[in-house]
Amino acid sequence: MIKVGIIGAGRIGRVHAESLYYHVKTAQITAVSDPAMAPDMKEWLAERNIEAFAGYNEIINDPRIDAVMVCSPTKTHTEIAIAAIKAGKHVFCEKPISADISEIKAVMSELEKTPVLFQVGFNRRYDHNFKAVREAVAAGRIGEPHIVKITSRDPNPPSLDYVKVSGGLFLDMAIHDFDMARFLTGSEVEEVFACGAVLVDPEIGKAGDIDTAVTTLKFASGALAVIDNSRRAEYGYDQRAEVFGSKGLVSISNDTPSSAVISGKDGVTGEKPLYFFLERYMNSFTDEVTDFINAIEKGTPPAVLAYDGLQAVLIAKAAGKSLNENRPVKLSEIGV
Amino acid sequence: MIKVGIIGAGRIGRVHAESLYYHVKTAQITAVSDPAMAPDMKEWLAERNIEAFAGYNEIINDPRIDAVMVCSPTKTHTEIAIAAIKAGKHVFCEKPISADISEIKAVMSELEKTPVLFQVGFNRRYDHNFKAVREAVAAGRIGEPHIVKITSRDPNPPSLDYVKVSGGLFLDMAIHDFDMARFLTGSEVEEVFACGAVLVDPEIGKAGDIDTAVTTLKFASGALAVIDNSRRAEYGYDQRAEVFGSKGLVSISNDTPSSAVISGKDGVTGEKPLYFFLERYMNSFTDEVTDFINAIEKGTPPAVLAYDGLQAVLIAKAAGKSLNENRPVKLSEIGV
Amino acid sequence: MIKVGIIGAGRIGRVHAESLYYHVKTAQITAVSDPAMAPDMKEWLAERNIEAFAGYNEIINDPRIDAVMVCSPTKTHTEIAIAAIKAGKHVFCEKPISADISEIKAVMSELEKTPVLFQVGFNRRYDHNFKAVREAVAAGRIGEPHIVKITSRDPNPPSLDYVKVSGGLFLDMAIHDFDMARFLTGSEVEEVFACGAVLVDPEIGKAGDIDTAVTTLKFASGALAVIDNSRRAEYGYDQRAEVFGSKGLVSISNDTPSSAVISGKDGVTGEKPLYFFLERYMNSFTDEVTDFINAIEKGTPPAVLAYDGLQAVLIAKAAGKSLNENRPVKLSEIGV
Amino acid sequence: MIKVGIIGAGRIGRVHAESLYYHVKTAQITAVSDPAMAPDMKEWLAERNIEAFAGYNEIINDPRIDAVMVCSPTKTHTEIAIAAIKAGKHVFCEKPISADISEIKAVMSELEKTPVLFQVGFNRRYDHNFKAVREAVAAGRIGEPHIVKITSRDPNPPSLDYVKVSGGLFLDMAIHDFDMARFLTGSEVEEVFACGAVLVDPEIGKAGDIDTAVTTLKFASGALAVIDNSRRAEYGYDQRAEVFGSKGLVSISNDTPSSAVISGKDGVTGEKPLYFFLERYMNSFTDEVTDFINAIEKGTPPAVLAYDGLQAVLIAKAAGKSLNENRPVKLSEIGV
Repeated sequence: MIKVGIIGAGRIGRVHAESLYYHVKTAQITAVSDPAMAPDMKEWLAERNIEAFAGYNEIINDPRIDAVMVCSPTKTHTEIAIAAIKAGKHVFCEKPISADISEIKAVMSELEKTPVLFQVGFNRRYDHNFKAVREAVAAGRIGEPHIVKITSRDPNPPSLDYVKVSGGLFLDMAIHDFDMARFLTGSEVEEVFACGAVLVDPEIGKAGDIDTAVTTLKFASGALAVIDNSRRAEYGYDQRAEVFGSKGLVSISNDTPSSAVISGKDGVTGEKPLYFFLERYMNSFTDEVTDFINAIEKGTPPAVLAYDGLQAVLIAKAAGKSLNENRPVKLSEIGV
Repeated sequence: MIKVGIIGAGRIGRVHAESLYYHVKTAQITAVSDPAMAPDMKEWLAERNIEAFAGYNEIINDPRIDAVMVCSPTKTHTEIAIAAIKAGKHVFCEKPISADISEIKAVMSELEKTPVLFQVGFNRRYDHNFKAVREAVAAGRIGEPHIVKITSRDPNPPSLDYVKVSGGLFLDMAIHDFDMARFLTGSEVEEVFACGAVLVDPEIGKAGDIDTAVTTLKFASGALAVIDNSRRAEYGYDQRAEVFGSKGLVSISNDTPSSAVISGKDGVTGEKPLYFFLERYMNSFTDEVTDFINAIEKGTPPAVLAYDGLQAVLIAKAAGKSLNENRPVKLSEIGV
Repeated sequence: MIKVGIIGAGRIGRVHAESLYYHVKTAQITAVSDPAMAPDMKEWLAERNIEAFAGYNEIINDPRIDAVMVCSPTKTHTEIAIAAIKAGKHVFCEKPISADISEIKAVMSELEKTPVLFQVGFNRRYDHNFKAVREAVAAGRIGEPHIVKITSRDPNPPSLDYVKVSGGLFLDMAIHDFDMARFLTGSEVEEVFACGAVLVDPEIGKAGDIDTAVTTLKFASGALAVIDNSRRAEYGYDQRAEVFGSKGLVSISNDTPSSAVISGKDGVTGEKPLYFFLERYMNSFTDEVTDFINAIEKGTPPAVLAYDGLQAVLIAKAAGKSLNENRPVKLSEIGV
Repeated sequence: MIKVGIIGAGRIGRVHAESLYYHVKTAQITAVSDPAMAPDMKEWLAERNIEAFAGYNEIINDPRIDAVMVCSPTKTHTEIAIAAIKAGKHVFCEKPISADISEIKAVMSELEKTPVLFQVGFNRRYDHNFKAVREAVAAGRIGEPHIVKITSRDPNPPSLDYVKVSGGLFLDMAIHDFDMARFLTGSEVEEVFACGAVLVDPEIGKAGDIDTAVTTLKFASGALAVIDNSRRAEYGYDQRAEVFGSKGLVSISNDTPSSAVISGKDGVTGEKPLYFFLERYMNSFTDEVTDFINAIEKGTPPAVLAYDGLQAVLIAKAAGKSLNENRPVKLSEIGV
C-alpha cells in the first residue's frame, strides 16, 4: 500500500484525491495540505480519516508518506518538488513544472542526486483516444510520421484575472498539445513557428495574451506538426488529432455524451463534445495516478518524465518568442 | 449501335431517354411514343431528330428498332411487352411487370417461345451503395447471410389519387425492397408476414391503403429479412440496408448533397439525405439502361429477369394477404 | 445512509456490490449472501468489514438492513423477493423477475399489501445512449413514434449448459429489448410475431432453443417495433436502436474503446464495439443502483416497476408462443 | 448557343470538351486545337463534326467563336490568353494563369482594354463539399472565420519528369488550396510561412522540390489558415477542409465510392476516398464550364477572376520564398 500526500487541494488536487481514494486500490491518502482549504474538502477528508494541513512541510516530513502529488499553483511547484525529492519522496508534479527553465533544470539536477520517481501531469497521454493514436503509430500502422495535426479549443476563455497570471496561451493551454505532438510521434521538436491573434475577446489582447493560435513544429525526424488553438469554441471542447505517415493516417474525433443523432427537417444532428476537460479527460486522470502508483510499486520509470516536462516548456517558450519576433525559433535558442 | 424505341414518355420514360441520349454511346433512340406527350418532350425529340408517336405500334412494327423500353402505366405493361416480344424486340420493362400474376406468367411463356432479352426496371440493383452490399455478400465478406434489414421511407406520400390506383404500398413502394432482399442475399423468399398501420395520413387509410409497414421475410436458406416502410419521413428519403451474417455485417447509409457538417451551440449537424428517388438513384437509372444495351450487344442475359419481376410481385401479394389475414403467408399460397 | 444486503454474489451481484461500495455515497453494504461464494469475494468483503452469509435469511431478518438486491438465480427470485417484501425491505430484483407469470403476479400482490419500493434490473434504461433516445422521444423531438428498430446481438453464445436452463433466447436475451421497446415509446405492446432460426450453432437448436430471431411488436398506439437478435456477431456486441416518428428519427450507434480510425490501403477502419455487456453497460449498472438508493431516500417510485418486469415477460412468452405456432400472438392470450 | 473553341486537348482539355458536349445544352464546340492531338480525340471530334487544328490561331481568328478555353501547357497560357482577349473572345484559362507574375499582370492589363469575360480554372470552388462550406461561411452560420484548415494530399506523386517542370509543389499542387483559403473565407492573405520536407521520395528532393508541406497563412482579417500537403497518401486522395469561427465550425470529409461499411473481426471498415481528382471533382469540372457559359450568356462576371488567379500565384510564390528563407513572407514582397 503506497502512502500518498497531496499538496494543493484546488480543483485538480481534489480530482487526484478522488481518483486515489475510489479507484487506486493499492494507494492510501495519508494527508492533504492547502493553505486555503475549502470547507467541503475538509469535511470529505475528515469523513475518511485523512489528515489535513495548511502547509506542505508536514507532508514532506512525514516518514510514513512514500509519494507526494504537487497540485499547488505553478510558481510553487519546483520549491515543493525539490523539497520532496530531498526528503526521498516520489513526486507527481502537475504541468507545467515551472515557467522558468532554470527551475526545471534544478529539479532535474536534484533527481540525479536522489533517484526517486518523478512524473509530470500530462494526463492526456492516458486518454483512450490519444493513447490509441500513439499505439497505432508505435505499432507502425501508419509507417513513418510525416504530418501531425492537433486541434485544441476550449469551450470558453478563463477569467481575465486568470489570463493575466496564466503565463499565456502557449504555456497554459497549448503546452498539453506540445507534449502530445512529442508523445504521438516519439520524436523531438527542433524548431517552432507560431502565429497568434486576438479574435475571441479584445480584453485578452489588452491583458497581453492571444486567444487564437496556429503553431508549426519541425521535428528532428523531418516530420511537421501543426497545432491550432482557440480559447473559445461555440460548440464546446474540441480535442482532435491525426497523424499522417508513409503508410496511412490515424485520426480521432471528439467524445460526446451519447451517440444519439436526430434526423429532422433541419438536418441530421448529433451531440456536442463532452463539455470541458473534467468531463472529457476524467478517466485519464484516474489512469495517470494509477500508473504513477504502479510505477512506484514496481520501481519502473514513470511514463512522463521531468525531461518531458522540460521539452514542453521549451516548445512553449519558443512559440512565445516566435510570436513576438515573427520568425521560426529553434529550441536551442531557449536558454536558462 | 442499338436502336431503341421508348414507349411512354412520363417521368421515368424521360429519365431513360436522357440516359440513353447523353450517356450510352452505343445506343440510339429511334422513336418515342406516348398518347399524351408533353410539349417540351416533343420539342426535345424534334431537336434531336427522334420520331414521336401517339401509339406504340409504330415502334413495335419498326424493323429498324432492336429494343423497346416499356415505360407506360403498369396496367399496359404486359400487353405491350408481349407484342414487342412477338415482334422480336428486346424488352426493358418498368417495375412491376404487372399486378396480375397470370399476366407476368404470360410474358414469361412468350419469352420461352421468342428468346429475346427481357430486363425488369429494378434500378436500385445498380445503385453504388446497394451494389457494394451485394458485392460484399457475394464475395463472402460477411459469411452466410442471417438477417437482412432494409429501411425504405419516402419524403412524402403520393397524391391520394395516385394512392387509389397504385396497387397499394406493397406493390407500389415496397416492391423495390422485396427485390432488394432477394438481390442482396441471392436467396429465395418462402414466407411473408406483414404488419401495417395508417399513421401518416388517415386519408390513405380511407383509400384502402396503409402508410407504414414492417414486413418480415423468411428465406429458403433460413435467413430472415425485415423491411420497414413509411410514406413520409420528415428528414427525407431514407434508403438504408444492412446484411448481417456469420462473419460480419455490411451496412450502407444515406447519401447527402454534401458532407458538410456544422458544429454550433445546438449540436453537430449534417445534411439531410438526397431528396427523392430521382436525386438519390439518378446514376442507377443510367447504369441500368447502359447494362441493358450492353447485354443486347453481347447477347448475355440481363441482370434482372422476368423471373425476378415475378418473385417481387409474389412477395408483395403475399404481404398484402398477410396483412389482411394477420398471419404469415407462404409464397406458394399465391396462385394465378 | 441506506443499509443494503445483497443476495447472490455471482457476476451481477459483484457488479452491484462494487457500484454501491465505490460510487453510491449514501449507501452502505451491510451483508452479502451466497451459498457458494467465491474466495476472492469473501476476501473483498472481509477487507471492507462486510458480513458474508451462505443463506439469505440472515439478510432478510437483519433489522438494520433497509433494502435487498436479489441477484440469485432466476428461479429463486420470487421466493426471496416475497420474503424480503414481507420483512419490509425495499427490493431490487434482477431481470427477469420470474419465468412464471403467476409468480410475478404473486410478487405484485405482495407489493399491494406492503408498499415497499420494488425495482427491476433493466439496466439498459440507464445507458447514456438509450436514455438519450428516450429523452428525445419524450421531449417530442421525433413526434409520435411510428417504427422502433432495435438490434441486439451478442459477441458469442453462452455455453450450451447455460442455454439449456436459460429459458430461451426470448426470456434470457431479448427480454432487455422487449423492455426497451416499451421504454423508448412509452407505449404498451399488444401483439407479437416472432421468427426464429438456428443459424449460429446447430447444438443450440438441439438444446431446443434458437440463436437468431426477428420479432415484430404491435403497440396499442398503432406503432410497430422490430427487434433482431443474434447469439453471435463476429464484430462484437451490437446494441443499436432507432425510433422513427411523425417528425423525425432518433438513432444510436455502438460505443467503441476509442474513436481512432486508421486510413490505409485497405480502407478506413474504426474499432469494434465495446466487447460485451459489462464493458458496454458498466455505467448503467452504477446508475441504476444509484437511482434505486435515491428513490428509497426520497420515497419516490423506482424507475422500473414490477409491472414493467411483468410486461417484458409477457412479451417474451408471447414471442415464444408465436414462434411455436407461427402466428401473431396477443399478450392477452398469455395467461397465468 | 455559345460557340466555343478549346485550345489544348490533353487530359483537362478533353474533360472540358466532354462536359461541354454532354452537359452544357447552351454551348457548342466549334473547334479544338492541339499540336499533338491523340488519334482517339481526333476520332471523337470527327464523329461530332467538330473541327480539329494543330495551332490555336485558327480558333482565335474564327469569327464564329465566342469563347476559348485555354487548356495548353502553363507556359503558353498568357500568350494565348492575350491573343484571344485581343480577338474579343471570352477566355476560360486553366490554373495557374502563369508562373510569372508579370505575365499575369499583362493579361489583367489587356482585360482592362477589352472587357471580355475571363475565368480561371479553380474548379474546386464548384465542388459540392467546398461550395457547402463557402455557403455556410457566407451565410454567417459560423460567424467570423478564425481558423481555416485544409488538407490536400495526392494518392501518388507525379512522374519525376513532371515534377521537374511543374513549378514545384506550391505552384502546381497547393495553388488550389491557396485559392480555396481565400474562397472559403472571402478574405485576402497578407503573409505566408511555409515548412517543407522531402519525406515521400528522395528523388523529388534531388529534383529540387519538396513532397510534404505545412503552410500557414495570415489573412487581412486577422484570421489564420493552415494547409497541409503531401504528394502521397497511402489511402488515396485526401481532400478535407474546415472553417472555425466565432459561432461554430463547418467541416467536410472525403467522398467515397459507396457508403458501405463492413464490420468484422478486424474492425469496422469503410471505403477509401474516391481515387484522384478526375473521380473526386468530375462534377465540379462540369459545373465550372456550365457557369462560364452561363456568365457569357447573361453578361455577368465569372466566379473566378484573373485577380483570383493572381492572388493564388502570389501566395504560392510567397510560400516558395518563405521555404527558401525560413521566415514569414508578406505578399507585398512578391514583385513582378
